[in-house]
Parts: sequence; structure tokens; C-alpha cells
Amino acid sequence: MRFRARILAAAVAVTGFTMTSPPASADEGMWLFNNVPKKLLKEKYNFEPTDAWLDHLQKASVRFNSGGSGSFVSATGLVMTNHHVGADDLQKLSTKEKDYLKEGFQAKTAAEEIKCKALELNCLQSIKDVTAEVNAAVKEGLPPAEAFKARQGKIAELEKANADEAKGVRADVVTLYAGGAYHLYTYKKYTDIRLVFAPEKAIAFFGGDPDNFEYPRYDLDMCFFRVYEDGKPIKPEHYLKWSEAGSKDGELTFVSGHPGRTNRQNTVAELEYLRDTGYPYLMQRLNRLEVLLGAWVARSEANRQEGEDDLFGIQNSRKARIGGLGGLLDPQIMARKAAEEKRLRDFIAANADKVPADAAKAFDVIAAGQKKRVEYIKEMTLLEGGAAFNSHLFSLARTLVRYTDEKGKPAGERLPEFGEARLGSLKQQLFSDEPISNDLELLKLADGLTLLATTFGADHELVKQVLAGKSPRERAYDLVSGTKLKDVPVRKAMFEGGADAADPMIALAKLVDGPARAIRKKVETEIDEPRRQAYSALAKARFAMDGTGNYPDATFTLRLAFGQVKGYKEDGKDVPPFTTMAGLYERSKQQENKYPFELPKRWEDKKSALDLKTPFNFVSTADIIGGNSGSPVVNAKGEVVGLIFDGNIQSLVLDFVYDQTVARAVSVDSRAMIEAMRKVYDATWLADELQGKK
Amino acid sequence: MRFRARILAAAVAVTGFTMTSPPASADEGMWLFNNVPKKLLKEKYNFEPTDAWLDHLQKASVRFNSGGSGSFVSATGLVMTNHHVGADDLQKLSTKEKDYLKEGFQAKTAAEEIKCKALELNCLQSIKDVTAEVNAAVKEGLPPAEAFKARQGKIAELEKANADEAKGVRADVVTLYAGGAYHLYTYKKYTDIRLVFAPEKAIAFFGGDPDNFEYPRYDLDMCFFRVYEDGKPIKPEHYLKWSEAGSKDGELTFVSGHPGRTNRQNTVAELEYLRDTGYPYLMQRLNRLEVLLGAWVARSEANRQEGEDDLFGIQNSRKARIGGLGGLLDPQIMARKAAEEKRLRDFIAANADKVPADAAKAFDVIAAGQKKRVEYIKEMTLLEGGAAFNSHLFSLARTLVRYTDEKGKPAGERLPEFGEARLGSLKQQLFSDEPISNDLELLKLADGLTLLATTFGADHELVKQVLAGKSPRERAYDLVSGTKLKDVPVRKAMFEGGADAADPMIALAKLVDGPARAIRKKVETEIDEPRRQAYSALAKARFAMDGTGNYPDATFTLRLAFGQVKGYKEDGKDVPPFTTMAGLYERSKQQENKYPFELPKRWEDKKSALDLKTPFNFVSTADIIGGNSGSPVVNAKGEVVGLIFDGNIQSLVLDFVYDQTVARAVSVDSRAMIEAMRKVYDATWLADELQGKK
Repeated sequence: MRFRARILAAAVAVTGFTMTSPPASADEGMWLFNNVPKKLLKEKYNFEPTDAWLDHLQKASVRFNSGGSGSFVSATGLVMTNHHVGADDLQKLSTKEKDYLKEGFQAKTAAEEIKCKALELNCLQSIKDVTAEVNAAVKEGLPPAEAFKARQGKIAELEKANADEAKGVRADVVTLYAGGAYHLYTYKKYTDIRLVFAPEKAIAFFGGDPDNFEYPRYDLDMCFFRVYEDGKPIKPEHYLKWSEAGSKDGELTFVSGHPGRTNRQNTVAELEYLRDTGYPYLMQRLNRLEVLLGAWVARSEANRQEGEDDLFGIQNSRKARIGGLGGLLDPQIMARKAAEEKRLRDFIAANADKVPADAAKAFDVIAAGQKKRVEYIKEMTLLEGGAAFNSHLFSLARTLVRYTDEKGKPAGERLPEFGEARLGSLKQQLFSDEPISNDLELLKLADGLTLLATTFGADHELVKQVLAGKSPRERAYDLVSGTKLKDVPVRKAMFEGGADAADPMIALAKLVDGPARAIRKKVETEIDEPRRQAYSALAKARFAMDGTGNYPDATFTLRLAFGQVKGYKEDGKDVPPFTTMAGLYERSKQQENKYPFELPKRWEDKKSALDLKTPFNFVSTADIIGGNSGSPVVNAKGEVVGLIFDGNIQSLVLDFVYDQTVARAVSVDSRAMIEAMRKVYDATWLADELQGKK
Repeated sequence: MRFRARILAAAVAVTGFTMTSPPASADEGMWLFNNVPKKLLKEKYNFEPTDAWLDHLQKASVRFNSGGSGSFVSATGLVMTNHHVGADDLQKLSTKEKDYLKEGFQAKTAAEEIKCKALELNCLQSIKDVTAEVNAAVKEGLPPAEAFKARQGKIAELEKANADEAKGVRADVVTLYAGGAYHLYTYKKYTDIRLVFAPEKAIAFFGGDPDNFEYPRYDLDMCFFRVYEDGKPIKPEHYLKWSEAGSKDGELTFVSGHPGRTNRQNTVAELEYLRDTGYPYLMQRLNRLEVLLGAWVARSEANRQEGEDDLFGIQNSRKARIGGLGGLLDPQIMARKAAEEKRLRDFIAANADKVPADAAKAFDVIAAGQKKRVEYIKEMTLLEGGAAFNSHLFSLARTLVRYTDEKGKPAGERLPEFGEARLGSLKQQLFSDEPISNDLELLKLADGLTLLATTFGADHELVKQVLAGKSPRERAYDLVSGTKLKDVPVRKAMFEGGADAADPMIALAKLVDGPARAIRKKVETEIDEPRRQAYSALAKARFAMDGTGNYPDATFTLRLAFGQVKGYKEDGKDVPPFTTMAGLYERSKQQENKYPFELPKRWEDKKSALDLKTPFNFVSTADIIGGNSGSPVVNAKGEVVGLIFDGNIQSLVLDFVYDQTVARAVSVDSRAMIEAMRKVYDATWLADELQGKK
């Protein structure tokens, strides 16, 4: 499923939130590193992770802020992730002459390694519970807007106090259990990341969108970067060793990564909102964008190079969402969720003394918020989410306009994304010299403006102001050809001196900023904040019911999952856990070696050199979701045996409920990686570095 | 633009309608064969078509009831059309072993010609004005529902009286000028149609969806059938001769074909409805279906063969609609339409004595109807349009259920599609043994049921009844695997003996028939009928203002268009009228000879044999629209010089307004067709037959 965090999805879902689960069983759980189910592991697998084992795995894990996971895998700062996590960067580094995404890349010497544009990696150093401090800042009985502001102020203050830009320390206060807990995460932040190795996309994403989320699979979805500081590769204290033997059927394995978002503690009312409005609306947008980009990419080789990565991201989200919606439309799953909810409702009703005072009405508060969401979703998505102005240039313009407005405000009153602690990342994004394609910008912006006009009606006052008497296409042309924001120095000057409305894109961003902020504020104060408080009350009620030993919903923070390497049954047939290299060649032949089943020439040439029995991909019962892409799979010794890159189609319900009968995480086998490096790519140097042979 | 009639579009637009234009100028017009602008042609081109010239062209023209146009082109019943018009049939005739759509087809002898399944061709024999008779049947002051019934009754009576199933005579009463006129069209109907010749799809649709609606183009979009009666090829009295020389830049040419539908006489309120609701909603459906089918088709070669034609139809509609919506969102076009409307409003206000009494309020009646359309569109599309049950098996079930209900009713009270005159065509469709793909049916039906559940909400009573406690996917599986309607004998038995609800698909069709008929009735009586009367009043007012010499909106009936072979300017650059065979090879090379720019092997092998200067495609100013696909392009002598297959992207506004600055019809050049037959396909026999050399 190409498990990247669902960035686009988040824009529709409005805000993230989390809550405790009912007691986990089986291989369920995306566990906090400071709350690992040691007892469960001991009982079920007779395995006891020590604190040192956990600390090592935590600090060898890396977050890709572009939306994925990774890990340190060598003494000289090599980072392993998926090809599809690195794809953004492969594309940005490509030129008209060299298409690294398509052709792959290999830096045999340090001098050949290429520095990425605007890529930030985070490595989690410490976790501190700051729940009491955050809660103390919000006086009881405060109206939602005030409570929101007070909490944001406290969070910004904590983040600022703990971050240290000069030392590369990033601090985020993470909301867990839907506000049942607040933890302060400090990260070591890296921004000098260099590309080291990538295979051809045709083998990394073999089978393309058609085979995405399917199993059996045959993908070498891997990519390697190296982290630098002060112009030299870092020597990480913690990195993962490579397993000699790889994994076996039935073996216990662990996944350390950054699941983006789950919705397991949603009330039934919220699930119904997602089923009836949120998902269908998102699917509409994804379908629209997929068709738009798909047709454009096919027009020419240049278009393909510029738009393909966007397109794959959209296809991936679409396929994931179809699966999720399928789960929500399954009456059995909804019945299970309703039964879970009833258990909590009954507990609250019978234990008024043990639960927060507002727990009883929490379900109604959440349900009322969902009704408002239905009302606000379009305005929120188009204006604040930016779907109406879908282009990189507009998002640059908005950032400049808002930064100009926000920079003078006290920390607690700023929009959180403009908090002091985030400015470093913000500047890196804003001043990146990654190329901007005029044609692609025009395509997307014209489509966005069309969406605006057809959603609000062409006679709507704001639409008329935005379009300025032109058709969407003409207006988009004027904006894209008229703006100077393609020049980094222009952006730098405006960052320092203020956004200049003489630029037409800045003028547009200013024009829509009032309405965009207005709908955001409505959503935050009328829906998000009451909902946050309601879920927080339910989380506390659930603590009272089941204790605090459970895992919270995913929040794109580091989690530990575990599970067995294990096949499953589908339509009565056994699907074995491992595929092999031989299977790759068979699948390609079956599909007449045609796109997206076309093997790179190198793979045809080197076939005879390969041990075709080498395990290629495998499945396990680990509990993962989008954002886990690039997570290392390690054995009980903490050695790399695989690399998460997908889930099967049956795993798509994991957004709402864990299942271990047929839902599976899909990984690249560590043995296939080495075999390919040595026999196909002549990358002995890389295999040696990973296996500690040099 | 692969100019087939927009079948899917019709389901959303609810009903067709037509009206007079303001006086045509330039090369504008889709003229009735009984009202050709002889004066205009004389003045502008010094050409006077005789009645014999027109009669010959009319009777050599053919309508493909599957949604396209064609013409007789030999003394032994050869019919020329587009490959994309024949694609449905090529697919239906293909087997697992022989994929004619992909590989092409050639019957060198009569014995090798293959009979099509469920294909009907119509050849227009006579036109009679029956306006007075139809109007007389509708007494003044009748409520809309009664008026509708009375008119339908009269129309059914006229059709029945003039049709003769035994002699293959079909009779349709055609509503023109939005009810300003009713003409009785009698057709010779042919149902024994055999496939004779088709090139590979890769050359017929070279450039695929990416190059669709674009120019320059290089498509050999042709296909040949032969018409049989009594087991022998017919000898048509009228067929078109082949031009020796082909056409020249600036030459006057004619197009005789069946434009499906235009909306040029829409009021501004109706255009606004289309802009704000109708088109966006249709685009949503098209995007959804394109993504669904696109992903599925790519999964395997078998899927591709089963689903590709559906997919291309959807892509084609989508691209056409994007262009149309772009036109509606262009303030200049809307201003032009508003000015036209003002002229008519002013005339009506100033000439109460010359216009019908209800002309003055007609604009308001139409506007009120559009508001109701917004309200009804989803229910109408899902239930009566069948989008919620998107599958061939469901449409068979519905036909059987409705036929069982309708057959006992008097002619005037039946649903028009079950009128006596249409039963022959209906049975041909119903009893066709074309293969039905279980997998494709399951895919589409599961998606349709998902659309139903997310549109009305999973807790809606009808949705619960339809899904019967299952998820959409499970329910679709039960229906597709449980129905017996795949067997033609089962369908025949139910046609004779009544639909049997023991079959789950029949039970479903029965379950939803009440709500489907109810929304259809609402739309017909509350919107369509008042609207029809209002447009009829406006049409009469327009007759009073400008006379009756103009052409009505398109209605998928035979029309004559004319125009010059002529290039145009785009982004300041000249686009010449002709492309050449050399250009084909260049475009393929540019795109690395990759799908959909991959040349069939035969074209690579025979390149050196070809005269690469041969004109391949050309553009002209003729006024065409979807449905014109396959229309012959003839010179002043009535000889074939080309074959319409597309319009450029700028022509997509022709739905609403004619333009001759940049809008162009795109044709295959007759010379390329002969060159390819002789040099690439060794089809000398076919070229000889066309050129009258045997």
C-alpha cells in the first residue's frame, strides 16, 4: 500500500486525534516506546525487550518529514527507507538529462552523493510526559476558543523552551489519547541528507498501481541516503545491524516506525461521518486529481517526469481509501464498533463517580461536531486546505502572506505552524530551489479554480474576485506566468521584508486569507476543540474502565509493532508468506513484460547470475498503517530482516480495527536487497557496508 | 474527441431538447436534410446542392444505433465508420484466442466476414412533418402530466402506424426545435451486419487518451462492415464513390452524420445549471469510473480485453466534458449567451401579439425547472439512470421486469422505450449472446452499490433493503454469482413468461423499480414537460423573430454540415490543416514508441513501402459534435475525401456556441486509408472495392 503518511487525507479529516483502545490482544498495537507491552510479549512469545534494546531501536529509527519512516543501518550514517519515500527527492534531484527516479542512482564514492533539497529527518531522543503542565494551563470552564488558545500557547511555550535550532534539536508536544496525554518529543533534526543508492522505479514499484496493496508482490522498494553534519557523514551511536540469515515462517519480528494516523477510537457517529461524507468527498478529490494528472502525464516524457510522483501519491491514497471505505460499509465491522461503544457507554452510565463529569455527554458533543463538519467540509477543504488553489506557487504565497502577519504576534497567538520551533523547517521548505514546473502548476491551479467555481457557483462573490473576469484556465495562466515566486531570492526578500501584493499570486493569497482563516477558526472552535475535550473525557473514562496500559491511535510519531511472519487464506487458497525472485520473472512474463510489469534491462541481463530461490517479499501480522513506509523489520536480536513498504488489501481496515486473520504488512526481504546489490547492481560496496564487511 | 454520441451524458442531462438558433453565419449549422441553407451555400461557396444530390447523400448515410455514424461506400453493401464506433462490436466478437480490437481483422472472403451481435444500423428513407398532428392530440390547458401522456400516446401511435417490423421499417417521431416541430423519420433498419476490416487499435487510436481531442493527429480510425439481408450482401441504391484526388487546403467539404446533442438554445438559467451542477456531477461520475476501470484493466491482460472499451468511452466523455465545462466557465461565452437571450426577451416583451401567450413566462418556467433538477439529480441518476446498479446484468433484469409490467398496457401508456415499434431492437439487445464478464460486472456493481450507500447514507431504508445486511462488495458478489441472467434461454423464458423474482438480480430490479419510476415521473412531469412547453413557446417566438430557416439543436438524427479544409492558430503558432504519414513516425519516435504511441509491428515493417508524404489526418470548419463519429466527409461531387473521427480541444464549446476561428473537426484522409490498405495491410481487395476497381 505504499505506506506513506496520508498528507492529503489529513486536509479533509481536518485534525488528527487519538484515544486509547480496548485492551489489545494478539499482535495488535502501535505501541509507544515508553509503554511497550512487555508482559504480553513475554506471555505470547517468551520475549522480554530490555530498556537498552528499546533505546537502541528507538534511536536507530528515523522519521522522514516528507511522510515516511527509515532507520540508520551503518556506522557512517547510512539511512534505509523505501524508494517511494525517497521518490520526491529522486524527482527533485533529477534533471532533463538524468532521471534518477526512473533510472536509479548509485554513488560509489562520497563525492558522488547528492544533497537533497528540503528534506528533513528526525531522530527521536527523548519522551517526557507533560500532560499535567498542559492541562494546568487550561482553566476549567474556559470557553472552547479560549481553551484552545491557552493550550496552544502552553504547547508553543514548551516547544520553544526545549528546541534548540543551533544544535539541531526539534521539540514537538504530541497529543496522545485524544488529549488524554501530552508528551514532549525531542528530536535530533538532520537537514543535510544525501542520496546514495536507488534502484530503478520499475523494480522498486514493480506492478505499479495495479499490484499496489496486493499480495503476492515482487517489489525492491528500497532507497538509501546518508546523513551529514558539518560536511561529513555522521557516525550514529545507534544503528541497526544486518541479519545474516533473514527471517523464517512463524518468526517474531518488530517494526519500528511512524504510523501516520488511525481512527480506532472514533465514536460510531464519527465513523458514520467518515463513511457518509469524509471518505466519499476525499475519494471524489482523489479521483479528480488522478484523472487530471494521469491524462497529463501520458502526453509526453517531460510531463511524466514532472508529474509522476504526484500521480502515484494520489493513486496510493485512493486505493487505501477504497479499502477503508469498504470496511466502514461492512455492517459487521460497524456492529463490532457499536458493541465496543456500548461497553464504554454502559461503563460511564454505571460509574459516574469514576469518570470525568463531561464523559456522559461526550458522545453527543462529538456527534454534533460531525454534523458541523458536513456543513463545513467543502469550504474548509477548498479555502483553508487550499484545494481551490492547488499549486506549489500558491502554497508558497500563502506561507509568505501568513508569515508576514504572524511573525509579530506573541508565541501563544500564532498559528501553530508558525511557532518559533518550526521556523527552521519552514524556511527550509520556503527557500528550497527545487524546480517548479510551469505546466504542471497551470494544470493543477486551473483545475483548482474550476473546483472553486463549481463548488461555490460562478456568481459567488469570492469566486468572482478570485477569477477576476477570466475563465479558470485563463486566470491560472495569468497567475502562474505573472508571479515571481519561482525565484528563491524573491521569496527570501518577501520573507524578510513582507509579502508584496504587487505579485499576483501574493495578491490572491491575501484575497482569500480572510475567508480561509475564518472557516479554519470555525472548525477549530466549533468542532475540534469541543471534540478534543469530549474525546479526552472518553479517554479518561476508558482509562478508568481498562487501565492505562494500552496504545493510543497513531499520530506520525514513533511506535513499536510486532508480529509473526505468516501467510493467510484468500478465497479458500493459501497465500504463503514469502515470494521469491523466480516469482518476479514469472509475473513479468505473465504480463508480457509490459508497463508497469516491465523489468529493467539490467534485471533481464543478470537473471542467470541470481539465486532465484532468494526470498523477495514477505508478509507479517504487525500492526501498521500509512506512515510506516520505510520502517525497518527487525528480529528479536534487533537485526534487520526486512523493510516495510505496503499492506495487503485486507489490511486497509486497520484504520479502524486490527485484524490478524488476513490483514498483513508487506516487506522487502533483507536477503533480496543484498542479492540484488551484489548480483544486479554491482553495489558490493553498499552490501559490504550494510553487512559490516568493510 | 472520438465523436460518439454521449450515452452516459444523456442519463444525467435527463432528456434531450432542441431549439432554433439565431441566424446562422459562416460555416455554422447542423442542418436538417429537408431544410438545407441553399442560399447561404450559393452566396458563400457558389455551390447549389440539387435535391438529387441531397437525396443521394442522405440515403448513403447510415446511423449506428450503438452511438455513431457511417455510410455506404460500395455497390455490395460495404459500410465505413470509425474504428472507435466499431470497437464495441470488435470486442464482442473477440475471443480469448483472438482479440480483434487489439490485433485488427480482415475478411478476405465473404465466408470470413463475422456477424455482429446486437448491432443495428438505420438508413433514413423519408422525413414527414407531423407537428400539426402531434399538437392536435394535446388539448390546450392540459396539466403537464396529461399533456405528456397525450403527446406520448400520439407519438407511439404514429410510430406504430408507420413502422413495419417484417419489412425492416423503423419509424421514429423526432422532437425538433424543443417541440417547435415534430418530424416522422422512417428508416430502413438492418440487423445482419458483418465485420469486414479493422486495423489494429494501436494505429486506429494512436496516441490514445493523451492525444484524444488534440491536433495534429495521426489516427487511422476506420472500420468497415457489410450489410446483409436474407443471408446476402445488400446492393444499396445509394452509396458514396471514392474521390481520386482527396481534398485540398481551402476546399469546401460536407459532413453527413448524426450529431448526438447540442445545447445551443439553452437559456442562461439552464447553462448555469449545467455549469454549476450538471457537468460537475457528471464529471464526478466519469472520474470515478475512469479510476475504477483504469486500475482494474491494468491488473491483467484478460481484464484489459474485457474492460478497455468501457474505459475509453469514459475517458472520451470526460475529456469532452472538461472542454464543455471550460466553455461554460468562460465569462465571455456566457456574456454572448446572455446577449442572445436578452435579444429574445426584448423581442417577446415588445411583440406580445406575435408570440405565444406563454412565451413571456417561459424563462421563469425553465429556471424553476433547473432548481428542481438540482434537487432530483442524484436520485434520478442513481435509481432511474441505474448508476447505483452499474452492470449489464442489472440492466437486463430491469428490462425484463419492466417489460413484464408494460406489455399489457395500451400503447399510449407504456414507457416509450417499450413501444411496439421499438420491441424488435429491444429483443435484439436482450437476446444477444455477447459474453458477460463476471469480474467486470462485480467490479462495477460493487462500486455502484457503494455510490448508493454513500449518496443516500448507509442507514437509508432503501439502501438497507438493497444491501440486505452485506457490504457492497459482498452483496455484489451474491448478486453476480447468484443470477441466471447470463444465460440467453433464461432471459428468453422470462421475456415470454414474466420476470421471475426467484432470481436475485430480478428481485433487486423489482425492489428498486418503484422508487426509480417515481423519480422518473417527478422529473418528467415537474421538469421535462413544463420545460418542453416553455422551450416550444420560445422556439415559436424565435420563429417570429428570425423566421424558420434555421437549424435545430442536434438530436442524433441525420444532419448536413459544411466547411472548409482549414488550419488555425494556437498560442501564436500556425497549425496546418494536414498531417502526413511521416508525422506519424515522428510522433511515435518522440514518445519512445511506448503505449499508447507504440506502432503495430506491421507499420514498422512496411514503413519503407509507404509514401510518407501521404496526407494522414486533416481539419475542417464543419460544425460537428459527439455522434458524428464515422461520418463521411465528401466533396462537392459527393465523393469521399475523409472520415470524421474527432474534434480538436477548442471545438468542445460547440455544444453551446459555434466557433470557426479555432474549433475544428478532425478527419482521417481518404488517401491515407487507401495507402494503408494497399501497402500495410495487403488489403488490395478492399481498396479496389472502395475505388470501384472490381
